[in-house]
Amino acid sequence: MGWNKVAIVGVGMIRFGELFDKSYDQMIEEAYLAAIEGVDKGITPKEIQAGWYGTARGFLHGQEALGGASLTGSIALAGIPSTRVENGCPTGADTFRNACLGVASGVYDVVLALGAEKMRDKSTTEGLLSRATQGHPIINRGETAPALFTFYAVRHMHEFGTTKEQMALVAVKNHANGALDPYAHHRAAICVEDVYKSPMVAYPFNVLDCCPQTDGAAAIILCRADLAAKYTDKPVYVAGFGLGTDYLHFHEKKTFTEFAATVSAAKQAYAMAGITPSQIDLAEVHDCFSIVELIDYEDLGFCEKGEGGKLVERGETERDGRIPVNVSGGLLSKGHPLGATGLAQLSELYWHLRNEAGERQVEIRRGYGLQHNVGGMGLANAAVTILSNHTN
Amino acid sequence: MGWNKVAIVGVGMIRFGELFDKSYDQMIEEAYLAAIEGVDKGITPKEIQAGWYGTARGFLHGQEALGGASLTGSIALAGIPSTRVENGCPTGADTFRNACLGVASGVYDVVLALGAEKMRDKSTTEGLLSRATQGHPIINRGETAPALFTFYAVRHMHEFGTTKEQMALVAVKNHANGALDPYAHHRAAICVEDVYKSPMVAYPFNVLDCCPQTDGAAAIILCRADLAAKYTDKPVYVAGFGLGTDYLHFHEKKTFTEFAATVSAAKQAYAMAGITPSQIDLAEVHDCFSIVELIDYEDLGFCEKGEGGKLVERGETERDGRIPVNVSGGLLSKGHPLGATGLAQLSELYWHLRNEAGERQVEIRRGYGLQHNVGGMGLANAAVTILSNHTN
Repeated sequence: MGWNKVAIVGVGMIRFGELFDKSYDQMIEEAYLAAIEGVDKGITPKEIQAGWYGTARGFLHGQEALGGASLTGSIALAGIPSTRVENGCPTGADTFRNACLGVASGVYDVVLALGAEKMRDKSTTEGLLSRATQGHPIINRGETAPALFTFYAVRHMHEFGTTKEQMALVAVKNHANGALDPYAHHRAAICVEDVYKSPMVAYPFNVLDCCPQTDGAAAIILCRADLAAKYTDKPVYVAGFGLGTDYLHFHEKKTFTEFAATVSAAKQAYAMAGITPSQIDLAEVHDCFSIVELIDYEDLGFCEKGEGGKLVERGETERDGRIPVNVSGGLLSKGHPLGATGLAQLSELYWHLRNEAGERQVEIRRGYGLQHNVGGMGLANAAVTILSNHTN
Repeated sequence: MGWNKVAIVGVGMIRFGELFDKSYDQMIEEAYLAAIEGVDKGITPKEIQAGWYGTARGFLHGQEALGGASLTGSIALAGIPSTRVENGCPTGADTFRNACLGVASGVYDVVLALGAEKMRDKSTTEGLLSRATQGHPIINRGETAPALFTFYAVRHMHEFGTTKEQMALVAVKNHANGALDPYAHHRAAICVEDVYKSPMVAYPFNVLDCCPQTDGAAAIILCRADLAAKYTDKPVYVAGFGLGTDYLHFHEKKTFTEFAATVSAAKQAYAMAGITPSQIDLAEVHDCFSIVELIDYEDLGFCEKGEGGKLVERGETERDGRIPVNVSGGLLSKGHPLGATGLAQLSELYWHLRNEAGERQVEIRRGYGLQHNVGGMGLANAAVTILSNHTN
């Protein structure tokens, strides 16, 4: 079932973390080389015909208006087409989607999707002030990410009885998973008490309800599905994808218990893949704040509206549960370098669907994995991608 | 001949200029409505299935990390996919290219490519300082656009005897053309003496050798070529396109008498369209500085290397010449709002290929028009697009 016009034949990433010692160029180069080396039967750089480069906050680091050439220049592939994509938190996933469209169009056979982001070189204060003073329509009202997401948390608690403990359980689960992921920023298991004792950021979020500020890069090599056998005997196919948008400003939102952009993206992706949520073996979803993963469960159809808290409480999204979620550690533990995040999530699915995820490996029964992001200023952009290890 | 999988069925733009009275939202909305109204047989907004939004300098105006939703939110189409593309000076053209790939992929039937840019709300000094202090790898060395392009001008003068008068003739021609274009920022004819008398910016560029700082927006509606008849009896087809990259830094450049990114993009586009430069009826090329148009003639194959100056001197690129160039007024007269420029150039070609360009109309003999941009920091990104009014 599904679209399956495009196959992934190589993935690579660098360990996420505070990478003060690496430039954008270095992060790009290392992720690219990892992806090249990840191709089972080998690939030469000159086989790559086009690139898509995802980076969201380039202006803070002088990457703005450098365009796609900042990718191809870094990896000695100057000459070939290269597009810079920016789409808030789904930047990495949308970079992948545009690369897929490029291959499916018939214009390019083999392409590279790469994302990189520095979140630590400039302080949060510096970044926020810089944007606010330049007239950012949301940040200049003081509406920072934790503040924006609290609306969703308190409304979900109010309408459905979702508890702070249920949110904490998301953080506990994802940190336990991240402890097993060599690419994760934070690799230490935590307990519910740790979440409660961590400093309060904005009610109901303690620090451990929030993802860290993380640098990182990830890369994926894609090709026409009918050419995949040249590169690997175990390609992973793009079964479907969706990109959703919502209105940017909070006075325009229709609800604070779901993300309209996610719902739209999921609908597109399931239709394209021709499957239902019950066929997903594992999911890497957007958990920038603990409440977001619970709402994702609902928006992605893993449970009924309002039941997200109960799903994590019953352990259904644990690594050995009914629908394992964020076995990589998620954004909460692995980190969230915007341009890289979606590509890293897809890489995690690739390894699981090929049964190569080591001690993180989940049971693959139906052969489908789902990737999801939601965010950007205004929480108005979302991406859902469905991968499969088979085409029938 | 050519690719022809995608057709343009509507174009629209706002008059370029100093638009202090318009927000990004307003510019987007007005260009979008003009494109919708430009569809001969009509179109309803809900027929548009996806959007691509080009804007290059968003960070200066709080548009950074708003993503594609800043397009769809502005035109009441929240829900559908929308990608923000940034690619320096070719941002608008690459936005169009990604929209083409989206349609050709078979995933979307009818899509919108729209670009908008505010170049005047923040002063040049404010913009440059903001980026330089944030660590921009090129601007923080003091390498602003006029300075970077002077290297090409003086080298071209040295190697080929190109003169300041030949450069001035480009400005004279393009301002004469722009005087006839209702969308142009500057609408007044000038003479060579005017160029010489205008203030010196950086040798050999006087002010009138440089394009102005201009706000603007432009939009194009594209669809599958086989669906075009629903919208118009005179579709214009995408015969081919190319996107080229070069190394970003000047110590990496191999020559200062051609733009490697343009040469690469042109090679891709001509091959895809299956034509040679001699088949082009008119071209809208990147003339951010007068010397650039002369080098474009050579890079795009309109004359031999080094002969660019003679081409304009002989009047071959006049409106009634062998190969009319920048009949819209070009960047020098019409203006250069980065995200909009490429889409505005394509709109001009659309009108000419349909014989609707009024007093600017050039003679269409073979039915091909060419669009070109080169730039971005490091002058490392270039786009070439070839449109045609026929598919045989």
